[in-house]
Amino acid sequence: MSIGTSVRCLVLTLPAVASLGSGTANAQPAAAIAAKTPIDRAKILTATGVFGNFSTYRVRPELAKLPLAERRAAVGEVLSVVDKHKDSVLVDVVLTRGFEAQSDYLLRLHANDLAATQAFLIDFRATRLGSHSEVTENLVGITKPLGYISKDKSPALNASLTAVTYSAEPPRYAVVIPVKKSAEWWNLPETQRLKELESHTSPTLPFLVNVKRKLYHSTGLDDTDFITYFETADLGAFHSLLLSLAKVPENRYHVRWGNPTVLGTISTMEHVAKILTATN
Amino acid sequence: MSIGTSVRCLVLTLPAVASLGSGTANAQPAAAIAAKTPIDRAKILTATGVFGNFSTYRVRPELAKLPLAERRAAVGEVLSVVDKHKDSVLVDVVLTRGFEAQSDYLLRLHANDLAATQAFLIDFRATRLGSHSEVTENLVGITKPLGYISKDKSPALNASLTAVTYSAEPPRYAVVIPVKKSAEWWNLPETQRLKELESHTSPTLPFLVNVKRKLYHSTGLDDTDFITYFETADLGAFHSLLLSLAKVPENRYHVRWGNPTVLGTISTMEHVAKILTATN
Amino acid sequence: MSIGTSVRCLVLTLPAVASLGSGTANAQPAAAIAAKTPIDRAKILTATGVFGNFSTYRVRPELAKLPLAERRAAVGEVLSVVDKHKDSVLVDVVLTRGFEAQSDYLLRLHANDLAATQAFLIDFRATRLGSHSEVTENLVGITKPLGYISKDKSPALNASLTAVTYSAEPPRYAVVIPVKKSAEWWNLPETQRLKELESHTSPTLPFLVNVKRKLYHSTGLDDTDFITYFETADLGAFHSLLLSLAKVPENRYHVRWGNPTVLGTISTMEHVAKILTATN
Amino acid sequence: MSIGTSVRCLVLTLPAVASLGSGTANAQPAAAIAAKTPIDRAKILTATGVFGNFSTYRVRPELAKLPLAERRAAVGEVLSVVDKHKDSVLVDVVLTRGFEAQSDYLLRLHANDLAATQAFLIDFRATRLGSHSEVTENLVGITKPLGYISKDKSPALNASLTAVTYSAEPPRYAVVIPVKKSAEWWNLPETQRLKELESHTSPTLPFLVNVKRKLYHSTGLDDTDFITYFETADLGAFHSLLLSLAKVPENRYHVRWGNPTVLGTISTMEHVAKILTATN
Amino acid sequence: MSIGTSVRCLVLTLPAVASLGSGTANAQPAAAIAAKTPIDRAKILTATGVFGNFSTYRVRPELAKLPLAERRAAVGEVLSVVDKHKDSVLVDVVLTRGFEAQSDYLLRLHANDLAATQAFLIDFRATRLGSHSEVTENLVGITKPLGYISKDKSPALNASLTAVTYSAEPPRYAVVIPVKKSAEWWNLPETQRLKELESHTSPTLPFLVNVKRKLYHSTGLDDTDFITYFETADLGAFHSLLLSLAKVPENRYHVRWGNPTVLGTISTMEHVAKILTATN
Repeated sequence: MSIGTSVRCLVLTLPAVASLGSGTANAQPAAAIAAKTPIDRAKILTATGVFGNFSTYRVRPELAKLPLAERRAAVGEVLSVVDKHKDSVLVDVVLTRGFEAQSDYLLRLHANDLAATQAFLIDFRATRLGSHSEVTENLVGITKPLGYISKDKSPALNASLTAVTYSAEPPRYAVVIPVKKSAEWWNLPETQRLKELESHTSPTLPFLVNVKRKLYHSTGLDDTDFITYFETADLGAFHSLLLSLAKVPENRYHVRWGNPTVLGTISTMEHVAKILTATN
Repeated sequence: MSIGTSVRCLVLTLPAVASLGSGTANAQPAAAIAAKTPIDRAKILTATGVFGNFSTYRVRPELAKLPLAERRAAVGEVLSVVDKHKDSVLVDVVLTRGFEAQSDYLLRLHANDLAATQAFLIDFRATRLGSHSEVTENLVGITKPLGYISKDKSPALNASLTAVTYSAEPPRYAVVIPVKKSAEWWNLPETQRLKELESHTSPTLPFLVNVKRKLYHSTGLDDTDFITYFETADLGAFHSLLLSLAKVPENRYHVRWGNPTVLGTISTMEHVAKILTATN
Repeated sequence: MSIGTSVRCLVLTLPAVASLGSGTANAQPAAAIAAKTPIDRAKILTATGVFGNFSTYRVRPELAKLPLAERRAAVGEVLSVVDKHKDSVLVDVVLTRGFEAQSDYLLRLHANDLAATQAFLIDFRATRLGSHSEVTENLVGITKPLGYISKDKSPALNASLTAVTYSAEPPRYAVVIPVKKSAEWWNLPETQRLKELESHTSPTLPFLVNVKRKLYHSTGLDDTDFITYFETADLGAFHSLLLSLAKVPENRYHVRWGNPTVLGTISTMEHVAKILTATN
Repeated sequence: MSIGTSVRCLVLTLPAVASLGSGTANAQPAAAIAAKTPIDRAKILTATGVFGNFSTYRVRPELAKLPLAERRAAVGEVLSVVDKHKDSVLVDVVLTRGFEAQSDYLLRLHANDLAATQAFLIDFRATRLGSHSEVTENLVGITKPLGYISKDKSPALNASLTAVTYSAEPPRYAVVIPVKKSAEWWNLPETQRLKELESHTSPTLPFLVNVKRKLYHSTGLDDTDFITYFETADLGAFHSLLLSLAKVPENRYHVRWGNPTVLGTISTMEHVAKILTATN
Repeated sequence: MSIGTSVRCLVLTLPAVASLGSGTANAQPAAAIAAKTPIDRAKILTATGVFGNFSTYRVRPELAKLPLAERRAAVGEVLSVVDKHKDSVLVDVVLTRGFEAQSDYLLRLHANDLAATQAFLIDFRATRLGSHSEVTENLVGITKPLGYISKDKSPALNASLTAVTYSAEPPRYAVVIPVKKSAEWWNLPETQRLKELESHTSPTLPFLVNVKRKLYHSTGLDDTDFITYFETADLGAFHSLLLSLAKVPENRYHVRWGNPTVLGTISTMEHVAKILTATN
């Protein structure tokens, strides 16, 4: 679970807020922005009790018809919203256009308070980009300590999991796969679920070096039990990893595995906004 | 079932009805409004034979394009409709934008006569906010006395259920989860269903202190058997509660559990209307 | 099956056809209209070999934006269409706005010739109300003699069914529930299906006094085997009736029971048209 | 399979092509049109190796808002397209408005070369009617010799099938029902499938006199295995036929039977175009 | 797997880039274009580790309403985008209008780097044709060496597969069928899966002469395990091939086989663009 250790520079160049004009509801005095301390990326991506909010968007054709100046302003506007909430919400962006029919981009948010992600998204939806986007999926989860392959319950496997870290070139692709398990799964004795998850984990060890993974728990928060998140530079290896997961008995307990599988390239809000407003 | 005991101030500031102008179809003489006695919140939320009407809405992009004066008037307009029906319909509002793809807000109505909720919603749909909203889900249920874990049938569990009340900080989040059970469930002998529901209830007792719950029966009224409604300030505890419900044998009889699960922040009509009209 | 005996006055006040102006494609000389004999409501609602055509509609937001005069004219226009076809099609209207996400109203048509319902609906769709409505469901069925609980096959139950008639206050609510049964059901020996339907019928006897019911057969005509139609003033009793039907073994053979369940208030074309055009 | 023997006059009155004006992309010199020999209806409807292309359409509301002259021209325009392709594509039209939520009309095309149906539909979609229609379903199949109830394999039943022909009044209604069968069906020994289809065929013999039937094979060409097409003047008899098919064991192997079932009145392109452009 | 050996001339006539005018975001200096070496079609279509990106599109009605000059420019514009990426992405186009309700055309892209297909599609979506198209499906896969019917594991069948090549007239039709297999399939011992795939392969040998096939692996990359792609001039033979695949036991492990099955005619970007802009 080493994804949090790779700190990417999300917002490369912050435009002057003044350039947004007086029409921007979310504008703040520059001093206030400057005073905010960004959330600690490495910390929030490894902590438990953190909320993950994954939402996908499809851009309406009207966005491309806005005058060029409007579209240019749209880029700075969303960066300003990201900046406004930087002390409470970590924002990652995945560009899915060209890989997905249902979306053009995905927002992956982390916050210690789920309401903070709502506050960000309300501001985001009020921007030109957000108001010209249709939400096509929204999943919410929470991070928790390892439930099965822990030091206590499965010491050998736990050691293997932590012995190896990602060592391939920086990930270019991200994949989000929701997982829901059957009533039969949840009604197994915990010892049996542990055994199944050990069978699940063993074949995945060879891929620790080239596929990063992160797990969110969603039971009750959404119509899924888990949100699984992956990053990789090697989609062939990722395919092999998922194929190995298909071949373990635990797969028999899946009632949802994907639907949607969301694949995209790891990007930045600035790049995605420029692409979608055709100002790149 | 202590949700009804927490009286929230729904409408903080009622705008002068006159400010809505002559274009408001639902305007009434101020005297008539003043004369109406609001429905008793604590009573209707604990009584049986009460109808619950849950509907979710997605705002059309056109709302945000109305002139500012129109959008400002839209807020007062919906508050006026809530006030007009306050003697027959209790209106609660949940803000779902940012958590759900299918909706921006949820209306939770209670009335002794289901037709009163229709009358309210017809007026609501004629407002600027309502007419710019698409209904994305609508579920109707009725409250009934405890059918299984009652004083007579399961005295010990019933005592446990009533011994503890919610004692955590005021709930910030609401969750609606529809439930439908299989023909196999309904064809079990009642004694077996009682046994299953005792197994269902026991693991939920620890969460009485931090998760409020309320049940509505929908068989025949909608394509679900139950509407389960929850309020909490602790989404981690709520997740644990739902996980414990997944692990009891009764889960095997679910043919619908969610679809949709609707999560939002407990709000007011005024706040939601301001957020969605961008006049906050 | 006593629904047909309750004759409701569908069209209260027929506007002068001349008021529709020359733009109305369906206008007829007043003399021709006056000469038509309305279909016999009591007779067609109890006869066999009659076609029932159930369709639901969601009004497009554009309807509310028509000038007031247009919207006022829209009401008379639909009443005129109902009147034009009154000798061949019986039209009932259910207001579903506020209870259903997929519809605002339901049309329930009866005719001896199914093509007559098509002729009516083609004219209806050409009106202002119809042309601003999206059809969201359309089910067609035919009435037949009792197939199982008949005088010959199940004399005692048949006697019980006919001994009691609806005696509660006039129904206010209507519910439409499509039913489709599995291949296993249809492959049972007829004697077994009779036995199952006797088990199905017995627990419903107590509700003859407060829930009216009518059955249409749809196999081959639509993606359902039956359309079940109910009217009641007591939704709690209706819920209990449907719950009792869930608890009989026949429920195991359902592959569709609802989807959609359509609930509404029994209304008139005039009232529904006024509500939806906001001219009430 | 006697449907092909009933030759209906599809296009009653062909408008002068010149009346379409220069804006019609598909206009051809009148001489070229006159020279074309219409496809032989009786022959193509009974031959094997013929492609059937079934597509349904829902008209967009914008069609009705075109100026009257445009709508009038729209009728001749589609007739001209039918005429242009008459030597390679046989066009039948079913009016489904009033019976189906998903469509207003269905096109049933026959051609010896499937690409010819595509050429026709591309021209059709470029007309005013076609460009204001949304395609809601499209199924493609091919006719083949009888696979099971043939002279060789099942001589007695084959004789019964061919001994009786349709003798009722001309059909007024058409029904299209897609059928897909399970892997279990296709993995049965052929002798067992023959036995099942004999059980399927026997109860349908009494309906040869009043329900016409035609079968298209679609495995691999579409998400269905068969397209079954029916014509009748007696919907009650048709309902009984389908009910008898529900009661044979072969029904257990259906994974799709309908979805959609498309019911309509047999019509002509001219009539349907006039109805939908409100120029009738 | 001989599809790659049939090199088709994709873009017959490349319009002068200058004709696109200054409004084309993707325009490049002519020299830069001339310098690009097109990807080797035969090589990329037979290599492993290549990514296949299949996307379907439905054209919005607004495209046909653009002025003729705009529509004419739209054709050259997309050809220019194809040319811009010709050194990294191979673009094939299938015309599906008239066969599919959900799409008008399909793009089949091959690239050694999946991100290159995204770059192409982002440029494509910015064109007039692309910006007036709605993406209705998008599947991504990767080519791999034969996993089961290889020289080592199944030498006889492998020899049969490679002994015969396509010898019929050039294919006119293409079909895309996604395939997903159950957890039971993936949990079979590999020897059993090999046995099943031998049973699967044998009946397909007779169709090597008249149906081309190509396989892409998608587990983890999308909500399917495989994308199967076919080309043929003989749809009757193709239907027989798919029917033979339905009859082998392996069919029992399919949880998705189609949904959608996409059928179209093999075309060129120029032809498809002209058809859909009505400038042909």
